[in-house]
Amino acid sequence: MDVSSSENIQKIITGVLNSDISFLSKAITLAESFKPEHQLVSQKIIDNIISHTGKSFRIGITGVPGVGKSSFIEKFGLELANKGFKIAVLAVDPSSTKSKGSILGDKTRMDELSKHPNVFIRPSPSAGELGGLTKSTYQSILLCEAAGYNRIIIETVGVGQSETLVHQVTDFFLLLMLAGAGDELQGIKRGIMEMADVIAITKADGSNIEKSRAAKIEYARALHLFPPNESGWIPKSVICSSLLNSGISDIVDLSETFLHYTTQNGFFNTKRNSQVLELFNQLLNQKIIQNFFSSETNRQKINSAISKIKNNDKNFLSLINEVLGLH
Amino acid sequence: MDVSSSENIQKIITGVLNSDISFLSKAITLAESFKPEHQLVSQKIIDNIISHTGKSFRIGITGVPGVGKSSFIEKFGLELANKGFKIAVLAVDPSSTKSKGSILGDKTRMDELSKHPNVFIRPSPSAGELGGLTKSTYQSILLCEAAGYNRIIIETVGVGQSETLVHQVTDFFLLLMLAGAGDELQGIKRGIMEMADVIAITKADGSNIEKSRAAKIEYARALHLFPPNESGWIPKSVICSSLLNSGISDIVDLSETFLHYTTQNGFFNTKRNSQVLELFNQLLNQKIIQNFFSSETNRQKINSAISKIKNNDKNFLSLINEVLGLH
Repeated sequence: MDVSSSENIQKIITGVLNSDISFLSKAITLAESFKPEHQLVSQKIIDNIISHTGKSFRIGITGVPGVGKSSFIEKFGLELANKGFKIAVLAVDPSSTKSKGSILGDKTRMDELSKHPNVFIRPSPSAGELGGLTKSTYQSILLCEAAGYNRIIIETVGVGQSETLVHQVTDFFLLLMLAGAGDELQGIKRGIMEMADVIAITKADGSNIEKSRAAKIEYARALHLFPPNESGWIPKSVICSSLLNSGISDIVDLSETFLHYTTQNGFFNTKRNSQVLELFNQLLNQKIIQNFFSSETNRQKINSAISKIKNNDKNFLSLINEVLGLH
Repeated sequence: MDVSSSENIQKIITGVLNSDISFLSKAITLAESFKPEHQLVSQKIIDNIISHTGKSFRIGITGVPGVGKSSFIEKFGLELANKGFKIAVLAVDPSSTKSKGSILGDKTRMDELSKHPNVFIRPSPSAGELGGLTKSTYQSILLCEAAGYNRIIIETVGVGQSETLVHQVTDFFLLLMLAGAGDELQGIKRGIMEMADVIAITKADGSNIEKSRAAKIEYARALHLFPPNESGWIPKSVICSSLLNSGISDIVDLSETFLHYTTQNGFFNTKRNSQVLELFNQLLNQKIIQNFFSSETNRQKINSAISKIKNNDKNFLSLINEVLGLH
């Protein structure tokens, strides 16, 4: 499909607004593309659907590999879908922005969910460019909203840029943890735990139940030591099992309670607005820096400065002046 | 003193290297100045003392107002000074980068410490410019090191940019907390607690002792839930009282143990090197952005974009393109 023709662009826009999954996927692919011409088209599409966006609850779900994210999201998404919500699942993997890999891999890992008529599952993009991930994730959210999805799950690995992403593009943050973690925790980026609105201890089944209950209490205690959320919401810790499908509908209820609570006290809109301003500032700064780095000469200067630093030159300030030609 | 004359600049350099406090103060004032000519002079000075830097243990101490930072540092610093170390105390207040205020206020709050011959106390600068605080703090540390101070205490308020500052310019992070906090915690920026190498519960005296012991145990439990420090060091929680001068020498010992441990396992140098690289990248990016913002036209474009966003224009990506003149 030739996306340079304005006729085809109009087809995509109409398709997205009509909730046509193939056009939605096409639009997201364009949003994820690094090709300038694709980014221009993507921008045109966004310009035309922006007025139809914003009407969803954006749910961030993070956890280290092995915590059981996919099986949790399968059950969690089905709960929501069966309540009549339209679910979009966007997988984002900031930990491997260079790889072409996908968290979800083949959708068979979310077999039942992926077959549900109300559900759209999108594997993780291969994002490389500075800020590209946040940008494309945010655009994908807008496109899904324009297509009528009102519960959008953003799945990330609790490492790398997850913290920023979650903070900048989601309304609610669910952190999945394992009982008796220790080692399992090592993957989680410092600071992420303090952002959680709900911490769910997964795999609370069989011989693991007691350990999970104990972990739940410990996390509750830890959460209670943290500074309060700006939302006024008191973070909860719960246990669940995707295997037994237990505790998961409670988490759905908690998230809906959070949505109601933050809508009532105005935090929901306040956060949305500050997110847009933050994204504007962040991406503007990144573009400005990219323009600087796009010059071969500048890149050479920077590389020579960095190698000096690596050779134990501690005077980075005069190195900066060299790069900027200030002396 | 005319700092444009190279003779006087040489005087300052020699004075700093001879540990002359009046010249050291002068050099720090120049490092904190936003005047381009002062920054140039400051750079010359740093260029000439850089080879004499690096030989100190940089200790970050953070806590909300009311936690008793000053009285703690008074006792903590005296412990170190009486061990024969040369102590520099740099107060930094990222929370009020625009104000001219100082955390320390008049030095009477550290009366005994400020009179000690081995001690240099420097109130907080008034930093306004983007990244100016990190830059001037780092330069002040270098200058104190060149002047022979081998234990440098950086006092910050646990809010605003403290997290970055502590991470970028210190070797060891001590977080002061109050027992039964709750409200007192609100000032602490999310994520800071997870960076602590030691959490000290202050004011553990009188009727407060039991509460403090309980808090110590709770924090120990919480710390244990966090991801391990890259240093391999297991964060400790302790109680202390500046009033009774109890527990403080233990904290001094803990910090020296940390220094020994991280020097042995190589983390100390690894972190120092990555700090320099990080500062280089951060400040380079800031300078690039500053250059962009220094244009009146650019500022006008940005302001009009921001007001559009405040008027609920969610399409920040096309606003960015407008600012950058990409369409």
